Amino acid sequence: MAVYTEVNEEELNAFLAPYELGAVLSLKGIAEGVENSNFLLKTASGSFILTLYEKRVEGADLPFFLGLMDHLAARGLRCPQPVKTRAGQALGRLAGRPAAIVTFLEGLSVRRPALHHCAALGAALADFHRLGEGFALSRRNSLSLGDWGPLFELARSRADEVSPGLTRVVDSELAFLQAHWPSHLPHGIIHADLFPDNVLFLGQTVSGLIDFYFACADAYAYDLVICLNAWCFELDGSFNLTKARGLMDAYREHRALRPTEIEALPVLARGAALRFALTRLVDWLNVPAGALVRPKNPLEYIAKLRFHQLVESPGDLGVTP
Amino acid sequence: MAVYTEVNEEELNAFLAPYELGAVLSLKGIAEGVENSNFLLKTASGSFILTLYEKRVEGADLPFFLGLMDHLAARGLRCPQPVKTRAGQALGRLAGRPAAIVTFLEGLSVRRPALHHCAALGAALADFHRLGEGFALSRRNSLSLGDWGPLFELARSRADEVSPGLTRVVDSELAFLQAHWPSHLPHGIIHADLFPDNVLFLGQTVSGLIDFYFACADAYAYDLVICLNAWCFELDGSFNLTKARGLMDAYREHRALRPTEIEALPVLARGAALRFALTRLVDWLNVPAGALVRPKNPLEYIAKLRFHQLVESPGDLGVTP
Repeated sequence: MAVYTEVNEEELNAFLAPYELGAVLSLKGIAEGVENSNFLLKTASGSFILTLYEKRVEGADLPFFLGLMDHLAARGLRCPQPVKTRAGQALGRLAGRPAAIVTFLEGLSVRRPALHHCAALGAALADFHRLGEGFALSRRNSLSLGDWGPLFELARSRADEVSPGLTRVVDSELAFLQAHWPSHLPHGIIHADLFPDNVLFLGQTVSGLIDFYFACADAYAYDLVICLNAWCFELDGSFNLTKARGLMDAYREHRALRPTEIEALPVLARGAALRFALTRLVDWLNVPAGALVRPKNPLEYIAKLRFHQLVESPGDLGVTP
Repeated sequence: MAVYTEVNEEELNAFLAPYELGAVLSLKGIAEGVENSNFLLKTASGSFILTLYEKRVEGADLPFFLGLMDHLAARGLRCPQPVKTRAGQALGRLAGRPAAIVTFLEGLSVRRPALHHCAALGAALADFHRLGEGFALSRRNSLSLGDWGPLFELARSRADEVSPGLTRVVDSELAFLQAHWPSHLPHGIIHADLFPDNVLFLGQTVSGLIDFYFACADAYAYDLVICLNAWCFELDGSFNLTKARGLMDAYREHRALRPTEIEALPVLARGAALRFALTRLVDWLNVPAGALVRPKNPLEYIAKLRFHQLVESPGDLGVTP
């Protein structure tokens, strides 16, 4: 939840002048997006989301993110579409920050996904992967295996304060993953953060995928287990195998999984759990004074990691060879 | 900026069932309202604001606040209008909290009010005062003169940490105000918090007054100096007499000020400055862990108080007898 930058009317009108959106009717800061300032903008043309990119988003990555939305929306994925100025620009500056306008999508994110939500998400994720093919730009995953060790160094000295023994758990898992991480899996553009917050539903239908600011090039199957971890555990920490099967089956109806991908899922799921545990741990230990965002508990993802450490085969994750 | 309570779709649909608003199209938490959780709700019928009342708002006061909006909207004031269920109820419960839906108002709040904004605000405030007459309910101002002493006790022990000598400034001002506070001024329902955040403009026209959760019975002229303090000082702390004249003249075109009110303005302005200094001071010293709101600096209002301590006559505040 975040509005880090205030926008005044003069700045807004100057920013909007090169667009063809008509008169501004309202602007409300919205409590979404941890990294950026987001506003719901109503104009004579309709509803839009105005995003001001704060410093945690690399300016150099913005053409990738905006271009990806454009590419996917043009191919029929339900996602925000960047709105362009008369001169064809999607990226401008507002209040001293890079800023862009995208179309507003109707729909509600679900707090407690049901089985049908997991299935719909699986299909939408597969569509994302297929439709992303052919996108001309790329972006390295800045939170991949080689980054996790340095990331943990930012938290190491205080990790055991968060949970006794956590340092040992992370170190041994990092060693395991470095020894067993799969390579040469089918890869392309992944969303990399498709949590329930970032999926809108109207009734049982996915009405939009949002928040593309972690998207990058990586293994498709890695994206799938990020979703598995985010959608198929219950609030009490238990793993819901039925939901996992629903997710996997629906994904595979829309994009086939190769045997190498299926075989890799248990290791990828451990890595995906560790990746979110580590970023949450660093945020947990570094809440800035005056923070507007409550950090998420890293131990939720350590518990998911412990579940995956006991997994014996892909079947335990809901997928059959 | 605030969303303290999350709402899930099942709860939302159950809450909305007794209304006639049609299917839900979206729900976005918005970064407005310090005391409550606010959402922009879109349904098949249009846009609305959904508010969940958190514990700082007294449940017993809600019929007053909602009734006041209803009373004023029915008389033509541009303000949110409570939406009622088929059974005529404006107040329900959602996620364990009292909750209500009001109409959405177009418009933008101004960050840096210009002269024409101050004049438009003066007229709107006078309309609020006139149109509030005849409202059947009342509510004591829980932040009036007699409350300021006990309020300062919550901050006394650490006040001088915020600014050396602050305790002495507050104590002597409280003594002055207790000796000189006017009584028997024309009174009725006042907004009591009509800061620029709470006034929406479309172009130069006031399109709505919002956030009625400090409204209460008190002297009209006290409401006027709350606005004077909030609208007529520049960011550098200087007092803009031209804006004050614009505010006062426009107010008086819509509601006449009696000589007793004019004479009382300088003392009332000191009290209004102290009232906001004190609530900000207490909030400043009591930021809860995990707070989602940055406290406002109390010293801004101590500086305004010091300005008013040097005022010699109502003319210094932009009003002529």
